[in-house]
Amino acid sequence: MKSHFSALAALSLLAATAASAAPPPLSLERLADDALENDRVAWDFVEGITTEVGPRQAGTEAEARGRDWAVKWLKANGFAGVKVEPYKMQTWVRGEERAEIVGTFAQPMKITALGNSASTGAAGLTAEVAYFPTYADLVAAPAGSLAGKIAFISHDMRPTQDGSGYGFAGPARWTGASLAASKGAVATVIRSIGTENHRTPHTGGTTFAEGVTPTPAGALSNPDADNLERMFARGKPIRMKLTLTPSAVGETDSGNVVAEITGRDPKLPPVLIACHLDSWDLGTGAIDDASGCGIIAAAAKQIARGDRPLRTIRLLFAGAEETGLWGSRAYAAAHRGEAIHAGIESDFGADRIWRLDSNFTQSAPALYQRLAKAVARFGVAPSQEVATGGADLNLARESKSAILDLQQDGTRYFDLHHTPDDTLDKVDPVQLRQNVGVWTQVVGILANEADAITPGA
Amino acid sequence: MKSHFSALAALSLLAATAASAAPPPLSLERLADDALENDRVAWDFVEGITTEVGPRQAGTEAEARGRDWAVKWLKANGFAGVKVEPYKMQTWVRGEERAEIVGTFAQPMKITALGNSASTGAAGLTAEVAYFPTYADLVAAPAGSLAGKIAFISHDMRPTQDGSGYGFAGPARWTGASLAASKGAVATVIRSIGTENHRTPHTGGTTFAEGVTPTPAGALSNPDADNLERMFARGKPIRMKLTLTPSAVGETDSGNVVAEITGRDPKLPPVLIACHLDSWDLGTGAIDDASGCGIIAAAAKQIARGDRPLRTIRLLFAGAEETGLWGSRAYAAAHRGEAIHAGIESDFGADRIWRLDSNFTQSAPALYQRLAKAVARFGVAPSQEVATGGADLNLARESKSAILDLQQDGTRYFDLHHTPDDTLDKVDPVQLRQNVGVWTQVVGILANEADAITPGA
Repeated sequence: MKSHFSALAALSLLAATAASAAPPPLSLERLADDALENDRVAWDFVEGITTEVGPRQAGTEAEARGRDWAVKWLKANGFAGVKVEPYKMQTWVRGEERAEIVGTFAQPMKITALGNSASTGAAGLTAEVAYFPTYADLVAAPAGSLAGKIAFISHDMRPTQDGSGYGFAGPARWTGASLAASKGAVATVIRSIGTENHRTPHTGGTTFAEGVTPTPAGALSNPDADNLERMFARGKPIRMKLTLTPSAVGETDSGNVVAEITGRDPKLPPVLIACHLDSWDLGTGAIDDASGCGIIAAAAKQIARGDRPLRTIRLLFAGAEETGLWGSRAYAAAHRGEAIHAGIESDFGADRIWRLDSNFTQSAPALYQRLAKAVARFGVAPSQEVATGGADLNLARESKSAILDLQQDGTRYFDLHHTPDDTLDKVDPVQLRQNVGVWTQVVGILANEADAITPGA
Repeated sequence: MKSHFSALAALSLLAATAASAAPPPLSLERLADDALENDRVAWDFVEGITTEVGPRQAGTEAEARGRDWAVKWLKANGFAGVKVEPYKMQTWVRGEERAEIVGTFAQPMKITALGNSASTGAAGLTAEVAYFPTYADLVAAPAGSLAGKIAFISHDMRPTQDGSGYGFAGPARWTGASLAASKGAVATVIRSIGTENHRTPHTGGTTFAEGVTPTPAGALSNPDADNLERMFARGKPIRMKLTLTPSAVGETDSGNVVAEITGRDPKLPPVLIACHLDSWDLGTGAIDDASGCGIIAAAAKQIARGDRPLRTIRLLFAGAEETGLWGSRAYAAAHRGEAIHAGIESDFGADRIWRLDSNFTQSAPALYQRLAKAVARFGVAPSQEVATGGADLNLARESKSAILDLQQDGTRYFDLHHTPDDTLDKVDPVQLRQNVGVWTQVVGILANEADAITPGA
């Protein structure tokens, strides 16, 4: 609520300047500019939920506390229609996690289990490690060649502004354990899908293919993966003891939190703006994705300070994104058939927006160009990239709606992604406000656009 | 041994240039310059021991493996008189460590036990937290006022090039738990004595005063300490469950590793160059203090490539520095009465040397100025600071010998100090070589100085 006071103060000052008791509402441009300089709403959300709730793992009581917190915060900030839309999900939780080299070069290593990892049992398992410098090397390994071994996939990732490095390195996490298991591996450890060199391994989900029995699977920190590579360079067999005791706890309750700024014509398809409320359990989910929720809520609140928008702005704080888009799928199922004017998600940290992508750049060029022109002053470039939308926009994708991506600078994102280091101190308040400014501008234009948008790249 | 090849190659090239089969030995200046550009010995040591041994906690079997490794390495690198000088010590080892806020703002925090911490028992202890922004605030707390509470000392540290920030913030760790216990606290948690914002808490020893019963004591990571401060800013009572199960395992074996480059006159008092071989258990002890041992050994080996020095250069790879200078004290006791020409230690990471301090700057100005002039080309400044020597130079201090401090840039040091992040990747090979160059120059001059040095500030 800190922002409330500064907003009031700003309005008071304007009122005094104009020597009028009832100044006209601020223009969208003024609101967006004000957000860039003065927004406190986004920070208030991120600071609040990371301090008062902390980690919010999908399907757990911590996620439920996160929903309760968000509902209270949205109501206190004047949003309409605030409610939880519940659904059921399958939940996996972390247990103990330890890795150590035994025998030659004996020493402990930092590891974290990947989502959906099987358990080694409390006694752990010990096996020789088979080293694969890249994912392609694992692909090339003969069938059965990993029998009885722990696969180590050391595919490394470099920072990229557009996050494309995740596509390059991600398969090692997403499907590496399944592939190794299909060739006989008893477990898999990967180099963290991350771009820093701290002893804070990166978790994240892994998926076992149909017919492949899940094995234990974990990520080593980058310095530990470096160390393991150096051990292999010495040409001796390396053995690891791995203890990972996660468990599948079965079906639990989760839910999406929804809210809105009601438009002048609530019957028109709304602008759907999304983020996700759950986080991995290791950090407090500040950049992934409390920042996204703070940004979209702050932008909606900024817009609400001006003239009421034509269309409703619908907020979706999705649940359980990290463990399989449970919230996105549940929302799409619950709202199937409802038209969406346009969908946008914020789920790539809190650093500045640098590029505007849409899926109507060619099919609705006048609107795209109007948007691009409106955000140029924030340092946002136009592009020909086709927006595909964030993970929680299943409904917009299924309904073939207009979608935008307000691309954030991802250079630092994978330093922190899915690690214990995803904490409030990593959020740059200046860049966070730039996000709110751009979102205010873009969502404000879309919510006042009377014509439907026809996507078409 | 990688360095061996490059050294040979360099010598071959020089031989070819001089069109002579037996070139004269390189001058000390040439050796130091060559070390700056080409030394691989220091890196070979640090890379080797961190990869093949890893953490080397004082008094444990891991430290013993470190000694064995160092003995083998020193012999392979041509040092004379390589041996272990054993001693007994009291050993403390880490157990489980967990902290969580319970009740209001419930969430886990990252903690590590401080050396000499008592155990909470496996069941942990839960108590209200009393917040002290600084050490002075704890000093001001009335007697008995902490009865039944966990003290939280949030005294924070800023980076300083000369490491003086450690003196400013260190007391919170060194004596904070004892002070809090004397006022009734059941346990103490401190903000990590560190200058970064990662979820990797900084361990280190704490000391309980005579008559104060030790309590559990741990350090929270800086982001967790920030979070706890934000919780207190909300004005509600905060409760923490703390589980720390370290144990004092009693008397165990440890030892110093010694070696030398024998001088032309072995009866003259030697130059004593020191580092410590043990490390805290959380990282692999790359900067604290494998780098120091690598630097001093590399410098001695560089000097040995030239004319044999007048005086013996004595290497002390001390044991058990981190948990109470056991090795330094044992060495001083074992060698009491042996004169030392001069003592120097490297124990402040691997970043560049920027200042030359001695305890004979006023009393032997010609020598000091000769040394200062000789290292100016490496970017090392003269100073009027009085050197007091590293922790492992007890013998030099007790014998009132000449002491030098080759001050390293400490700006980054406390980002890594006593954390899991003290790993090889943090060592900058270029700055490591600068250390070897400066050490080669300084130790080479001292070892060829016939006159005794009279300290006197």
